[in-house]
Amino acid sequence: MSRYVWLHDKMIKEEDAHLPFFDRGYYFGDGVYEVIRIYSGKPFMLTAHWKRLERSASEINIEMTVTKQAFSDIIFQLKEKNEIHNGYVYFQMTRGIEERQHLYSNDLSPVITAFAKESDIPLDKQKHGVSLWAMEDIRWLRCDIKTIHLLANVMAKNTAFTHGAEEALLHRGNTVTEGASTNIFLVKNGVIYTHPADNYILNGITRQVVIELAKENRFPLKETPFSLIDISENDEMFITSTTLEIVPVTCIRGSIEVTLQPGIVTRKLQAAFQAREK
Amino acid sequence: MSRYVWLHDKMIKEEDAHLPFFDRGYYFGDGVYEVIRIYSGKPFMLTAHWKRLERSASEINIEMTVTKQAFSDIIFQLKEKNEIHNGYVYFQMTRGIEERQHLYSNDLSPVITAFAKESDIPLDKQKHGVSLWAMEDIRWLRCDIKTIHLLANVMAKNTAFTHGAEEALLHRGNTVTEGASTNIFLVKNGVIYTHPADNYILNGITRQVVIELAKENRFPLKETPFSLIDISENDEMFITSTTLEIVPVTCIRGSIEVTLQPGIVTRKLQAAFQAREK
Repeated sequence: MSRYVWLHDKMIKEEDAHLPFFDRGYYFGDGVYEVIRIYSGKPFMLTAHWKRLERSASEINIEMTVTKQAFSDIIFQLKEKNEIHNGYVYFQMTRGIEERQHLYSNDLSPVITAFAKESDIPLDKQKHGVSLWAMEDIRWLRCDIKTIHLLANVMAKNTAFTHGAEEALLHRGNTVTEGASTNIFLVKNGVIYTHPADNYILNGITRQVVIELAKENRFPLKETPFSLIDISENDEMFITSTTLEIVPVTCIRGSIEVTLQPGIVTRKLQAAFQAREK
Repeated sequence: MSRYVWLHDKMIKEEDAHLPFFDRGYYFGDGVYEVIRIYSGKPFMLTAHWKRLERSASEINIEMTVTKQAFSDIIFQLKEKNEIHNGYVYFQMTRGIEERQHLYSNDLSPVITAFAKESDIPLDKQKHGVSLWAMEDIRWLRCDIKTIHLLANVMAKNTAFTHGAEEALLHRGNTVTEGASTNIFLVKNGVIYTHPADNYILNGITRQVVIELAKENRFPLKETPFSLIDISENDEMFITSTTLEIVPVTCIRGSIEVTLQPGIVTRKLQAAFQAREK
């Protein structure tokens, strides 16, 4: 079966999809994106993804030419045509096409690309946990915008991998921010801590769901930064993302070395996440 | 006359040039580039550009598949075919093509794109100067690598433009780093200051030429950071880049407000730059 992807205003076969030579996305990382989870053929948290996309575009002054209905239609068409059961749709919008120069024109039409992919829920990681590689966070100071300006994240992820870890733990000085493509939570003395949703982190949709679930289940949760030196082997730690959901951390190496166990709060949040209607 | 651009391993008409859908450059800003000046049909500082490209690729672990000869040939072919007299060649190398994921494979073949453009020497700016908009530098901490991870630079340039300035003056705290696509020099009491070539700035080729010219002309030059509060109306300031060469700064607004005059050191360096064999 041919795979179908979205380009500009229509769905076409992947092999027929070629990008514009002077797309600003290609020369400047000048675009925004979303990754939308599909569960049993149904998009999850569609409105939250749409709102974040709208905010990201607005923050970097890209004109939002896609309505929520069009966004939703593209996701539905891609997951239907590609017969996605559990997986995700990637949706990207670059500023548009013009001769390369830093200064952009204000009348550009964004270029939309999207594709769907089957991707199982990582049950093994959710059960047994993953290891992190702790390193200095060297990214720019607008990590709150979900842009394709991602090279620092790519480098962090690959540095972690070369050290045998599945994900990075990024810290600015001693303050833990987030992972290369995940948010990070620490559970200490029964209180859940995570970095506040300011310019230093991307406010993940799964992060937002976890905060809701913590409230519903009356787990104390503080959106307060925590420090590398706060992390001890008696604590729980977990990471969240659209594709991973909630995954315990069992080992940290790099700037610090800590061994952890998946704990009761993590397990309860995982159960609450699974129980949530999707 | 059709314009010709470079894609992969050959020169083709711009209208026939389409990029691979799953090029990592498009989803992650995962690539490096150079802009090479052409003067009277001759590439300027080719070896320096080649060396910097090689270093940039190495720093982000992109395999350098292009020899210096191939790099040079592409530039020559593009400037010949497009009949460039005074202009530049843009040369880019992304990590390669694969399904989008942060973690990259190690066996990818880089994608090469390049194009040429006629571009006059900006004599008016060189004579009369430009204004800068001073703002906080929020970029990542590897500005020394010439990557296409440039959204922060794009935003800075456009913020400057919306305030009626031609370029940004970026500062971390009070320390002046560089412009959005230029290096910045301050001349104070006869001494030229510019930020050292560390991870906070891109070591511009024109910056390197200016440092050489200062030595040859026995102007004291210190690669020492200077502060916003060091800048006074009695000083000279100039910016440098491959396309601008040496351009005086006559006005700074934003974080600080200073009016300046093009000065004798700037004029002498401009003359020395023009006299240099190209």
